Amino acid sequence: MNRFGHENLDLSVYLVADWASTAGRPLWQIVAAAVEGGATTVQLRCKDVPARDFLADVLACAQHTAGRAALLVNDRVDVYLAARAAGAPVDGVHIGQSDLPADAVRGLIGPDAILGLSASRPEDLASLARYPEGTVSYLGTGAVRPTPTKKDHPEPLGFAGFAAFAAAAPLPCVAIGGIGHGDAAEARASGAAGMAVVRAICAAADPAEATRSLVREWAEAGA
Amino acid sequence: MNRFGHENLDLSVYLVADWASTAGRPLWQIVAAAVEGGATTVQLRCKDVPARDFLADVLACAQHTAGRAALLVNDRVDVYLAARAAGAPVDGVHIGQSDLPADAVRGLIGPDAILGLSASRPEDLASLARYPEGTVSYLGTGAVRPTPTKKDHPEPLGFAGFAAFAAAAPLPCVAIGGIGHGDAAEARASGAAGMAVVRAICAAADPAEATRSLVREWAEAGA
Repeated sequence: MNRFGHENLDLSVYLVADWASTAGRPLWQIVAAAVEGGATTVQLRCKDVPARDFLADVLACAQHTAGRAALLVNDRVDVYLAARAAGAPVDGVHIGQSDLPADAVRGLIGPDAILGLSASRPEDLASLARYPEGTVSYLGTGAVRPTPTKKDHPEPLGFAGFAAFAAAAPLPCVAIGGIGHGDAAEARASGAAGMAVVRAICAAADPAEATRSLVREWAEAGA
Repeated sequence: MNRFGHENLDLSVYLVADWASTAGRPLWQIVAAAVEGGATTVQLRCKDVPARDFLADVLACAQHTAGRAALLVNDRVDVYLAARAAGAPVDGVHIGQSDLPADAVRGLIGPDAILGLSASRPEDLASLARYPEGTVSYLGTGAVRPTPTKKDHPEPLGFAGFAAFAAAAPLPCVAIGGIGHGDAAEARASGAAGMAVVRAICAAADPAEATRSLVREWAEAGA
């Protein structure tokens, strides 16, 4: 069983560690700082990175997340499987609508791994409903706002759109897309299980302090 | 067991079906024609294609290769695994030096699947020697000549360089890179187990006839 199985999963301050958004710093350095600052979940996104380098990034980051934050691999199920086979404490996979189908991924990663799915349109919920229960662990929903770090998302939802989607969704929804400091209250009020950020941590001069501040905001918004 | 296990593997006329080199035709159409023309092995290369589309290509092509040619998936071990899980007769994976390490891939695909590895430098043979026997099934060696379809290869080997590498290699070597019609005799004389082509089939006006002609040349060169 994963330390961060479905039941223990804390999506509240969710770092999408994107190799292209670190201002030249190594990915593990951002991840280590974010974990120190209290990030609860870390997704590694390494688009256009050769699989061997992506695997090396996963293994390096897993040393910092182990026992402290859930670690998820974006898209490359094979990189996740290779990291697991190497004994690394990696917890699951996050996929988008153009990646492998969620039921196929669930078959490859087994029942205990976390599987996140990007979903923001009514038709995404319709296709989700066709999978057996337990296929997907949570949804990443956005973009809430326009964002330069992901080009293939549909029109921004706004928090109103996010709230409508989250209310209709059968799974916890993490708000993503242009989210950062000052958004925790609105995100929680909209029913978000967490806020996923890229630049608010990856591009911060002090990623640990940036994370600490997001953790504080999230806690205060729930008080 | 695979129909095209290690022992039955025929690498002689080896199509690298590259989605970007088909002059706009669907990949399965090129593959179907090549199989009709006698191609013995087909590798699907879909760089920068979302995994869901790559999987759809694999499933479509497998209908045409089944029982007639070995079908290999480039790089994406997860796409291979998903295709196998879906019951498609896909035979293995081909990886390059920047993809997942060969021993990790072998662990994921099991002992019976075919695993090809791009290798052309002495250091590639040195790293190959560190894997257990049976990890890799064959090598793809090149580029023999300069080629526009792959940008990340080292200096062209020429057939003399290919022959030297193949003589030192402990596995069958397929010649790749700028190979096409008129090359069979030199390839066989250089110790090639086969000739791997992209444009000579993918870009041909009549891919079936282009393949038929390569098959004929290969046979005549061995007579």
